[in-house]
Amino acid sequence: MSRIAIVGGTGDLGMGLAARLASKHQVVIGSRDPARAQGAAAKAAALSGAAVEGKTNDEAADLCEIAILAVPDLPSEELLLSLKPRLTGKLVISPIVAMTVREGFFLPALESGSAAEKVASALATRVAGAFHTVPAARLLTIQEKLDYDVLVTAETREAYSESAAVVSSIAGLRPLYAGPLRNSRMVEGITPTLLNVGKLNRMRSPSVRIV
Amino acid sequence: MSRIAIVGGTGDLGMGLAARLASKHQVVIGSRDPARAQGAAAKAAALSGAAVEGKTNDEAADLCEIAILAVPDLPSEELLLSLKPRLTGKLVISPIVAMTVREGFFLPALESGSAAEKVASALATRVAGAFHTVPAARLLTIQEKLDYDVLVTAETREAYSESAAVVSSIAGLRPLYAGPLRNSRMVEGITPTLLNVGKLNRMRSPSVRIV
Repeated sequence: MSRIAIVGGTGDLGMGLAARLASKHQVVIGSRDPARAQGAAAKAAALSGAAVEGKTNDEAADLCEIAILAVPDLPSEELLLSLKPRLTGKLVISPIVAMTVREGFFLPALESGSAAEKVASALATRVAGAFHTVPAARLLTIQEKLDYDVLVTAETREAYSESAAVVSSIAGLRPLYAGPLRNSRMVEGITPTLLNVGKLNRMRSPSVRIV
Repeated sequence: MSRIAIVGGTGDLGMGLAARLASKHQVVIGSRDPARAQGAAAKAAALSGAAVEGKTNDEAADLCEIAILAVPDLPSEELLLSLKPRLTGKLVISPIVAMTVREGFFLPALESGSAAEKVASALATRVAGAFHTVPAARLLTIQEKLDYDVLVTAETREAYSESAAVVSSIAGLRPLYAGPLRNSRMVEGITPTLLNVGKLNRMRSPSVRIV
């Protein structure tokens, strides 16, 4: 049982994670706009049957022990600056994948490095990459049984274990350690690959299992 | 039924592919050293119960309709120059992943691009990336039932289909189209990730399924 903030959590991924985590944790969805946060929280609460709060990103970050950055792209400088003092010493989980589209195919938007490393360098706290390949649509379909693997990058085995505990608190997700943050580029690259594979082979919301 | 050359095929991946393909295709293992090629071919034939020939790389390339480059790293300039005229107009499948190790973790060795693109640019014929994530040890354990997905990159849907036919001629492998060759970097990046995940989570010869 942790206090988890889902920063920028009003999209499908944020609401889906909130809905799946709320029965085990105290979950706060954050947004720039507190009314939108409360709307998303009400939806997630209705799906999960457990309480979910909605607050500003700053309030959510202040309250939490663990923050998940469920923003749709690299977070703005402004957001990172505002979060930095509030998240010092806390675990930050980055599901962020920066993507671009070229001739109909998804590609990593970053020339080098990874979103997780950018977040870690901006926030100066311990950051783990996780949840990149869990389809938001499947999380939100709360009656759907999940059976996916979640690759987790983190500088230390301890930060991995903390993050793995969050991942495994969602039934059907198995965390696997994928090494330090510099391995995040490879892990984040799996998401555009899944989107391409889904589109080219007519698979809906594909995810991965390591077998 | 195609004539398939497994160039540089005396390692575990080459012998494993030969053993798994020999019941459906006419398979020739190539090596610089024809005696080594014949030794590997004899092993693959014993595993599969079907005929496998061993020849020089050049002879194997001359004979084949489809070549699989089962070399352990980027092929040498010398090998590519020698293969080029022999493989013109033929399908070449690259399972190559160039990797390096840093502080105990596997990483892509190429700063940018992919092995498949390098091979395509050197050979000037149609090239597909495939088989990157199929563990050689599992191929070689011939009694083991496979159940893996194989991501295939190729410039055209036609080249994909030709390659997919080779992949699906191995029972338990499902080909999935992952887009043009410029997507190969992401696909080739899954292999070092699997090696890291296997090591960190004590999984033997991990592979992937898209679910």
